[in-house]
Amino acid sequence: MDKHRRNLIKAGASAAVGSMLMGQNLAQAQSGAPTPAVTPLAGKIGMRLATATIAGGAPTVIVVLDDGRIVDLKSAAQRQNVALGFDGASMLALVASGNAGLAQVKAVADRAAQDAGLPSLGQASLMSPIPRPDRNIYCVGWNYLDHFEEGKNARADKVVQTLPDHPVFFSKATHTMNGPFDPIPHDITNSNTTDWEAELAVVIGQRGRNIQEADAMDYVFGYAAYNDTTSREIQQKRHGGQWFKGKSLDGHGPMGPWIVTAAGVKLDDVRVICRVNGVEKQNASYRQMYFKIPRIIAELSRGMTLEAGDIIATGTPSGVGFARTPPEFLKPGDMLETEITGVGIIRNPIKSEV
Amino acid sequence: MDKHRRNLIKAGASAAVGSMLMGQNLAQAQSGAPTPAVTPLAGKIGMRLATATIAGGAPTVIVVLDDGRIVDLKSAAQRQNVALGFDGASMLALVASGNAGLAQVKAVADRAAQDAGLPSLGQASLMSPIPRPDRNIYCVGWNYLDHFEEGKNARADKVVQTLPDHPVFFSKATHTMNGPFDPIPHDITNSNTTDWEAELAVVIGQRGRNIQEADAMDYVFGYAAYNDTTSREIQQKRHGGQWFKGKSLDGHGPMGPWIVTAAGVKLDDVRVICRVNGVEKQNASYRQMYFKIPRIIAELSRGMTLEAGDIIATGTPSGVGFARTPPEFLKPGDMLETEITGVGIIRNPIKSEV
Repeated sequence: MDKHRRNLIKAGASAAVGSMLMGQNLAQAQSGAPTPAVTPLAGKIGMRLATATIAGGAPTVIVVLDDGRIVDLKSAAQRQNVALGFDGASMLALVASGNAGLAQVKAVADRAAQDAGLPSLGQASLMSPIPRPDRNIYCVGWNYLDHFEEGKNARADKVVQTLPDHPVFFSKATHTMNGPFDPIPHDITNSNTTDWEAELAVVIGQRGRNIQEADAMDYVFGYAAYNDTTSREIQQKRHGGQWFKGKSLDGHGPMGPWIVTAAGVKLDDVRVICRVNGVEKQNASYRQMYFKIPRIIAELSRGMTLEAGDIIATGTPSGVGFARTPPEFLKPGDMLETEITGVGIIRNPIKSEV
Repeated sequence: MDKHRRNLIKAGASAAVGSMLMGQNLAQAQSGAPTPAVTPLAGKIGMRLATATIAGGAPTVIVVLDDGRIVDLKSAAQRQNVALGFDGASMLALVASGNAGLAQVKAVADRAAQDAGLPSLGQASLMSPIPRPDRNIYCVGWNYLDHFEEGKNARADKVVQTLPDHPVFFSKATHTMNGPFDPIPHDITNSNTTDWEAELAVVIGQRGRNIQEADAMDYVFGYAAYNDTTSREIQQKRHGGQWFKGKSLDGHGPMGPWIVTAAGVKLDDVRVICRVNGVEKQNASYRQMYFKIPRIIAELSRGMTLEAGDIIATGTPSGVGFARTPPEFLKPGDMLETEITGVGIIRNPIKSEV
């Protein structure tokens, strides 16, 4: 079976899982947070690292095991008399600790996995893996050929009609960060053109500047599902063609459900999928990405230092709402679902805040 | 004497001071950091708050008195047995402490001013008042009518030809932050079109969202001189018309020499001035600003939370290099001087880093 066909089948399978989860989510609407699906990772040494609260405690880092049980990193390390080289409650500290820290996490999680009494994912309340980013979220625009084409005529700004030689970069303010299952606020008095953009997020693992394309993958800590939720009118029309503000409304950038470490993801098998109320809107392969991750990291870090814990959203494929005929936008009550196959699914209801 | 005339005279005077300082700076090139000029503040209760190292110590907050002596806030508070309600070495902590913190600073500085043995500004090495911002720097584009006009035909992107109804917003990455007298790196292999943009920077004093224009000035902590140093080609041509990357090269955003608290600045008297090698390139009044600070804060905070310590660069007047005939750009060895009258002057040499 060729790779393309395998991916198509995979896409079909995950769409089905997505719909199941939608049902599950509706059923759980009364009973609290949904339990995210745990799908197998590509490599034996990959890990799912989440930030969560357990039983109303303080936010902390957990490792999500293949069988859906979770390891509270900090307390497991204490029980095992392991002195972590970083603050075990902070994902940013873990990321900055480098390979030494990651090896500690792996060892603690492997030992903890032998415990009989581990809690399960359903007992944790997941937050964004990096709840409070240290810098704006870096984003790539027009990075799938079909999305570029679909937007070309729908866009208010007709400035770019040919594919760029370099990636388009912009940033999102830090308060856009949102949890994987938290509501996205919708203020109709400010914007009624909220659109979806499913994306693969890359988390940077170490500081770097002028990173060479050939070395760039050494700077990747891991991956997560991300939705670059956008107010189209504010993005395209209100602020002179600069996208920053229309991309930066509070809560308009959910991420999660966890970070899968780089070794756990086979990029060529990744599909980026978006569903609204269970209906698939976007579905593309990483292989359709125009500027691949090494090129993005090289271009972004040219003259600009990247830090451990920085987040890069790598662009969205075709199927966004504003380019549809007629245009479609998110409204209160909608359920926005963003999936990165082999990583996870996040699910965010749109909630009126007026 | 009318206000306009007073400002013209003031501008002339500060140009002269600027030139004097240039000479002073050249003379001091061998003897270390230059000693910044301390000009009178508009109000009795305004303060100059800087971040500095003294005698090679750790960065700390200092108060710069009218007579050029300085108060090391943390150690003065200790000597006076005052328990500060915040970390006295951190400007961000001071800003976040609100009016209560500011009142403590004022009381400590007033008492310390009685000491005979206070060090002088020349003994301190000034850093950016906020050396490590918590978020990207927010910026306003095209905010002086004459700068909009000069750029209209020179710009590569012809997309906006009429004045906007809303401010243009973009952001600069945090590593752009640079000290008031530190060199700006110049990598000719990346960009040979580095341009100046003298601006008035506003420091936000408290968290806010959907701030009303009428209340906006309550959210201003203070002001500083800022240069939104820009790589024009990267800004306008390399990344599809989004300005973020061309605005975000490391060190391309010097700020200082200190923050003057809001009560110490009379905005209508402020002039924004840029000199390159002592030659005046930009000189405009705050009164020529198109979207004034209350409007900027109201628009920026619409749906997007601002935090204490956030920095907003309010736009640059006409006279930038790329719009000149022929275009002018900064080159290694140049001295870039940015003045906000009534606040202070920063002076940054351009330094080749290849």
